[in-house]
Amino acid sequence: MKHTSTADKKKTVAVGLPPGTLVLQGQQKVERTTITVCEYSEHSLQANTVEKIEDCFPLKDKPVVTWINITGLHDINTIEKLGKHLSIHPLVLEDILSTNSRPKVEVHTDYIFIILNELSFVSTTDDFLSDQVSILIGPNFVISLQEQNDIFDPIRRRLVQSQNLIRKMGPDYLAYTLIDLLVDNYFSLLEIIEDHIELLEEELLSAASTKTLHEIHQIKNILIRMRKSIWPVREVINDLIRSESTLIQKSVGIYLRDVNDHAIHVIDTIESLRDMISGMLDIYLSSVSNKMNAVMKVLTIIATIFIPLTFIAGIYGMNFDFMPELHWKLAYPALLFIMLIIAVIMVIFFRRKKWL
Amino acid sequence: MKHTSTADKKKTVAVGLPPGTLVLQGQQKVERTTITVCEYSEHSLQANTVEKIEDCFPLKDKPVVTWINITGLHDINTIEKLGKHLSIHPLVLEDILSTNSRPKVEVHTDYIFIILNELSFVSTTDDFLSDQVSILIGPNFVISLQEQNDIFDPIRRRLVQSQNLIRKMGPDYLAYTLIDLLVDNYFSLLEIIEDHIELLEEELLSAASTKTLHEIHQIKNILIRMRKSIWPVREVINDLIRSESTLIQKSVGIYLRDVNDHAIHVIDTIESLRDMISGMLDIYLSSVSNKMNAVMKVLTIIATIFIPLTFIAGIYGMNFDFMPELHWKLAYPALLFIMLIIAVIMVIFFRRKKWL
Amino acid sequence: MKHTSTADKKKTVAVGLPPGTLVLQGQQKVERTTITVCEYSEHSLQANTVEKIEDCFPLKDKPVVTWINITGLHDINTIEKLGKHLSIHPLVLEDILSTNSRPKVEVHTDYIFIILNELSFVSTTDDFLSDQVSILIGPNFVISLQEQNDIFDPIRRRLVQSQNLIRKMGPDYLAYTLIDLLVDNYFSLLEIIEDHIELLEEELLSAASTKTLHEIHQIKNILIRMRKSIWPVREVINDLIRSESTLIQKSVGIYLRDVNDHAIHVIDTIESLRDMISGMLDIYLSSVSNKMNAVMKVLTIIATIFIPLTFIAGIYGMNFDFMPELHWKLAYPALLFIMLIIAVIMVIFFRRKKWL
Amino acid sequence: MKHTSTADKKKTVAVGLPPGTLVLQGQQKVERTTITVCEYSEHSLQANTVEKIEDCFPLKDKPVVTWINITGLHDINTIEKLGKHLSIHPLVLEDILSTNSRPKVEVHTDYIFIILNELSFVSTTDDFLSDQVSILIGPNFVISLQEQNDIFDPIRRRLVQSQNLIRKMGPDYLAYTLIDLLVDNYFSLLEIIEDHIELLEEELLSAASTKTLHEIHQIKNILIRMRKSIWPVREVINDLIRSESTLIQKSVGIYLRDVNDHAIHVIDTIESLRDMISGMLDIYLSSVSNKMNAVMKVLTIIATIFIPLTFIAGIYGMNFDFMPELHWKLAYPALLFIMLIIAVIMVIFFRRKKWL
Amino acid sequence: MKHTSTADKKKTVAVGLPPGTLVLQGQQKVERTTITVCEYSEHSLQANTVEKIEDCFPLKDKPVVTWINITGLHDINTIEKLGKHLSIHPLVLEDILSTNSRPKVEVHTDYIFIILNELSFVSTTDDFLSDQVSILIGPNFVISLQEQNDIFDPIRRRLVQSQNLIRKMGPDYLAYTLIDLLVDNYFSLLEIIEDHIELLEEELLSAASTKTLHEIHQIKNILIRMRKSIWPVREVINDLIRSESTLIQKSVGIYLRDVNDHAIHVIDTIESLRDMISGMLDIYLSSVSNKMNAVMKVLTIIATIFIPLTFIAGIYGMNFDFMPELHWKLAYPALLFIMLIIAVIMVIFFRRKKWL
Repeated sequence: MKHTSTADKKKTVAVGLPPGTLVLQGQQKVERTTITVCEYSEHSLQANTVEKIEDCFPLKDKPVVTWINITGLHDINTIEKLGKHLSIHPLVLEDILSTNSRPKVEVHTDYIFIILNELSFVSTTDDFLSDQVSILIGPNFVISLQEQNDIFDPIRRRLVQSQNLIRKMGPDYLAYTLIDLLVDNYFSLLEIIEDHIELLEEELLSAASTKTLHEIHQIKNILIRMRKSIWPVREVINDLIRSESTLIQKSVGIYLRDVNDHAIHVIDTIESLRDMISGMLDIYLSSVSNKMNAVMKVLTIIATIFIPLTFIAGIYGMNFDFMPELHWKLAYPALLFIMLIIAVIMVIFFRRKKWL
Repeated sequence: MKHTSTADKKKTVAVGLPPGTLVLQGQQKVERTTITVCEYSEHSLQANTVEKIEDCFPLKDKPVVTWINITGLHDINTIEKLGKHLSIHPLVLEDILSTNSRPKVEVHTDYIFIILNELSFVSTTDDFLSDQVSILIGPNFVISLQEQNDIFDPIRRRLVQSQNLIRKMGPDYLAYTLIDLLVDNYFSLLEIIEDHIELLEEELLSAASTKTLHEIHQIKNILIRMRKSIWPVREVINDLIRSESTLIQKSVGIYLRDVNDHAIHVIDTIESLRDMISGMLDIYLSSVSNKMNAVMKVLTIIATIFIPLTFIAGIYGMNFDFMPELHWKLAYPALLFIMLIIAVIMVIFFRRKKWL
Repeated sequence: MKHTSTADKKKTVAVGLPPGTLVLQGQQKVERTTITVCEYSEHSLQANTVEKIEDCFPLKDKPVVTWINITGLHDINTIEKLGKHLSIHPLVLEDILSTNSRPKVEVHTDYIFIILNELSFVSTTDDFLSDQVSILIGPNFVISLQEQNDIFDPIRRRLVQSQNLIRKMGPDYLAYTLIDLLVDNYFSLLEIIEDHIELLEEELLSAASTKTLHEIHQIKNILIRMRKSIWPVREVINDLIRSESTLIQKSVGIYLRDVNDHAIHVIDTIESLRDMISGMLDIYLSSVSNKMNAVMKVLTIIATIFIPLTFIAGIYGMNFDFMPELHWKLAYPALLFIMLIIAVIMVIFFRRKKWL
Repeated sequence: MKHTSTADKKKTVAVGLPPGTLVLQGQQKVERTTITVCEYSEHSLQANTVEKIEDCFPLKDKPVVTWINITGLHDINTIEKLGKHLSIHPLVLEDILSTNSRPKVEVHTDYIFIILNELSFVSTTDDFLSDQVSILIGPNFVISLQEQNDIFDPIRRRLVQSQNLIRKMGPDYLAYTLIDLLVDNYFSLLEIIEDHIELLEEELLSAASTKTLHEIHQIKNILIRMRKSIWPVREVINDLIRSESTLIQKSVGIYLRDVNDHAIHVIDTIESLRDMISGMLDIYLSSVSNKMNAVMKVLTIIATIFIPLTFIAGIYGMNFDFMPELHWKLAYPALLFIMLIIAVIMVIFFRRKKWL
Repeated sequence: MKHTSTADKKKTVAVGLPPGTLVLQGQQKVERTTITVCEYSEHSLQANTVEKIEDCFPLKDKPVVTWINITGLHDINTIEKLGKHLSIHPLVLEDILSTNSRPKVEVHTDYIFIILNELSFVSTTDDFLSDQVSILIGPNFVISLQEQNDIFDPIRRRLVQSQNLIRKMGPDYLAYTLIDLLVDNYFSLLEIIEDHIELLEEELLSAASTKTLHEIHQIKNILIRMRKSIWPVREVINDLIRSESTLIQKSVGIYLRDVNDHAIHVIDTIESLRDMISGMLDIYLSSVSNKMNAVMKVLTIIATIFIPLTFIAGIYGMNFDFMPELHWKLAYPALLFIMLIIAVIMVIFFRRKKWL
């Protein structure tokens, strides 16, 4: 289980640039920018992929909700045009492009701007990917922007169903479903991690190796990362609920509170898992000590039994002229017997010490 | 002492499903759904087990308090009918079925919805079980829902007694007794854990083994789990007390504050036990080091006494032609005496170092 | 230094019992219930020991302050009568009898109910005892209840002095003196613990043993216990000060604030001591490692000097026919000299490594 | 990677001096004081370096924004004249000169005084430098003061561009750009540290040495230092936003909130990195234990195989007259074979224990 | 670096004594009580040492500010008279004498009572001393009381200067200068500790010994102690600023806020140093492990090379009749060569393992 965060590693902070300078901070991750547009009302739905952002603009004034999703942010031109058309504050555009911002919400008069982090597990590469998702909520549109991979397909599938609640409600509810999807993603991640922890616990009991330690370390780092991503989300959703913006209707409040509960649950679970992980580290370290103990005991037993015996053999290997024992008939078997006695005493001593 | 939490392990987060989609998240744990209904007023009590949830519905408008308890949540049909009959918000129904939610309270206009966690110890299997208990409080009814095993038998037995306070008071008081039972359960668990810790402390002093370590680790994990379950309860009860819902009467406030004090006491005790557990870990680790020390001392004493003596014996085992000592008459006994002196000096040295 | 808490160990949580069921939770600790009554005004004082609680009841309406102290709570009958006479809420009576509650204050219209913990050190048995003290403050009475041993003798002695402030003031001031005594008890405990820590620090520097470790562990546990007991006291006193009950007069506020400062000072000191204790643990653990190091060095020095020499002696103990050195005249003294040189080089090497 | 903080080491607290006594606390770091003045309005810009602070004073009343930057604070005379001219509170002047203050904001009626810390990495010397930057915001001027090296060049370059936002807005916006630059500097530092941590993680896996440990320690200390510097910045900016001073216009609020988000992001990242660093320490310590284990195993294997064999060889090296085996023809090869068997058994034993 | 706190060690808590009983809690530290009186206005200054406290009393009503400093608190009579003359609350007098109170402020109608701790380093004895300083602020007087050594000399020297700000302002400003001096003292202490830590860091890298560990431990304890002393000061000053007492004029507020910033800076620095100290402990512990590793390696290398060789020598020292090799002509040099080869192989093996 690895975690790759190219956004983190290659971000180039543009120190000293004027705020609002549009530079993509973070690595370009996809080949081309994809723009999908969904226009829907309770009774109609139209979904398209457009080439240029300009193609969406006339859509804005129709009496339907328009959801524009942009995947791939390196085409700064697109973002700039979008910003100009909707008169987005330059700082917002800068945040959209920084791809490594802290989750936050900004309530402007004409729109609400939300930044969240997406964390996903790519099972094929056994790898964690992180991405920034920006959401703009307007009076009759929602714009979602992401750098890496489009994760909003499930929402699109739900939109197709004509009886769906999204179709009946406004852009605020659509934004809620996007946020809910992002938060629920953390649950899937936590499940994967919990499974992994369980495997590691079994490994710890049977055959802990350095590999186990590095995996514990890696999970710890992923949890640190997740915590950093999800922690501010609580605040974001609370700010959304408390904001007195007319863009968020009262009826959506209960849904936002629900997603807030989920976020808190994720945080609680992360904290619990971190506590468990730190317990596993203690077990690992003590298992290393225990192994050393076992090794030392073997060495000590062998050495303590044979070193004195070797000394006695050495005595009778000396070449003194006058060593009367050497000439006794039963000396040799007697000595062997004495040596046996010594060995037996040693073994009894070790048994008492519970080393054998 | 193990802890099994099938709910945790097998929960399948339905990422991307619309909110309010009724899917049982968590493993099905009981064969069939059991529905028990108690209707009571100060002077009457009627308790039944019904087959279908529809059988309860006419009961709702009678001038008595109706308590419906549903054990086993896999029969989604039942939950759906109940929801429709009482016009429960779909998100509430979803939370009831998720069986792994964070404890919370939601005050709706017509009802109050409470989620709590139940933790119980099954002595036969030496195992901890966790379950989610949902409580709906209405103007003249209480509905409790649980997945696993019905734990509300003591309440039913109390209801039978005609002089009981529950019979005199409204559904809010009944809900309080349910919550109180759940919180008191934690005390029983803590008692079991405290006893276990005491045993482990004695084991630590006499004969700490790897088993001891794993048991310490397991208790630590159970405490982490308990903490995660009980921590939000404080908040839940506070929200209940502060809620200005007409469903909670003032006279019940003092009882809720009491159960809140209990919850805080549980949290305090968990924190203290966690501190103690971490102290035990330190003791264990240092006992491992101490054992190693003891082993090393034995090895060092034996080696340090006999290695020099073996060397001396080796000297006189050499086959040089001209070694005058070999032909001295008293050389052998003299050498044995010298060896004894060396051994005695070594022993005195070790005594000084307090190794013997 | 041990700590015994029978209350903790034997408490039997009455799960599922109705609130207000009067069962003594905790072990019975004294043979018989003792009831002492002090009636006092500025100019009069009458102190008695009564047999039955009923003997106190007519006292209640006299224009004096009545202080009833009950030691030994197993006589549930007494508590029940008292409760009925003063119309105490059943939950309050339950809390009085549970003997293991969390410190708290409850402001009722007719009385204020306070629970505190008492921790005392019995020097004869080198043992810590914990007890719960309940205090009921009424318009002209104070009732204190404790299970184990009567600790309020100093207050009684002060009451005898006619110029005493207690005599001049109301029951609220008497309650303050009781609380003050309980909090000051913690200071005495901390002094005992500080002395013990100082002894342990000296022991650590001179001769740390496993006993030292267990004593450190025990002090740590006592501090955890004290912290759990004193922490909520702050809150209790703050609630008392802020309560707008007419039972607490303004002039007593400054005294309560003073005892609050003391409680905070106790907490600060406990935290500091815990930090110091954890530092001592580090020292202990590293002293164990250091000892091991010293042992290993001795072993290594001996082995490293003599193993090569023994090998050389072994060479010349071989029985090959053609070993020309064996027949050289000066071979033996030369070899001894070479061995000496090797030993000296080894010693110099060890000096350089600062092992000798 | 080292960090040098001469300001920290050589600060001489002037204990007992009257407040407002102007003494440069901290080492003099630059040769001479440099004073640069920029006067700008939307359509004009004039930048100069002046010799004496007096040369700036007439500038003050012109209908342009004047930005005075002073690098090098040892010329107390300059600061004093400035203070007198603008009637700055003596405590503010003292804080400017202390060069080691905690970041803070003080809102006076005529000006706002801000202290921030600057941390920068000098790649040539592989060294971290810290400096204090003081900012005074007035109705039509901004004065920035720093001891060490002028870091505001990027701002000056931006000022030159006539279309720049700074030129269009007031001194509050200029102050924001200065603060933003300082906060963004932390991001660059964090990037350097993250790269370093990544290198260290690889080193940990391949070849951990004492050097690795010291580098981990050093990064930890730098993070502690950064945290101490950036933590109060949050507060500073919040105070600025909430201050009802007319010197901060509403339109600048959104920019300040943005820089506040950046500061919180820096803090979050520092916390995450500290958690990761502490995980690396655990890995390092366990790698040391693992190495010891490996060493011990080699020793034990060698000793356990050869010590018994040497003993057997010793037996047949004894010189007893009556040792029948010595005269058997096949004794020697048989013994060698037995020795081989013993060695093989030992090896099998070690394989089972997974030591080989 | 030691720290002595006789106040801590010998404090005798007067459990059960009535509040306001004047007993000096803490050891008597100075021979005699010294009372110094300064009367000053903007244009006059009169400083005296008086024998009896009564000599000061007529001073009180003059139109000047009177500063009475009392060093040595064992003369309870003096304190009592002072208390009676100024009608100080008995609890305040008790706090003055306890010499080990927690820093606090109490705003009474006629005076403000402040307790602070003083920590100073006596370089001659390499010792830390702690003392309690009590300050009473009245409408035209300040009374400072301390047990041990008079630290307010610098203030007195400043008073002499006629242009001094203290002379122009009221008793509240004088109290500020006293508080400022006490807080600045902590900075001097921190400087000493920082220097010490730097020395220890160098020691850690070159030659860590048990002494280093004990010094780290001692600094840790001093920091714990300092933290306990300075932490409440923040609160004290905040309470002073927020108090609406007429005894504190608005113009002094800015000075108090400044000293508050200093206190927070001290706390931040203490926290940073504690973090660094705990990092040093880790380094120390791992350096102990590393040393052990080095020792073990030497032992293992020597043993692993010579034990097999000694075994081989032992083989050819056996006395079997039929050992053909013994009679080969080149057997001896050949064996020596084989031994050399074995040793070389071993050395290569160790090189590969990077042990040599």
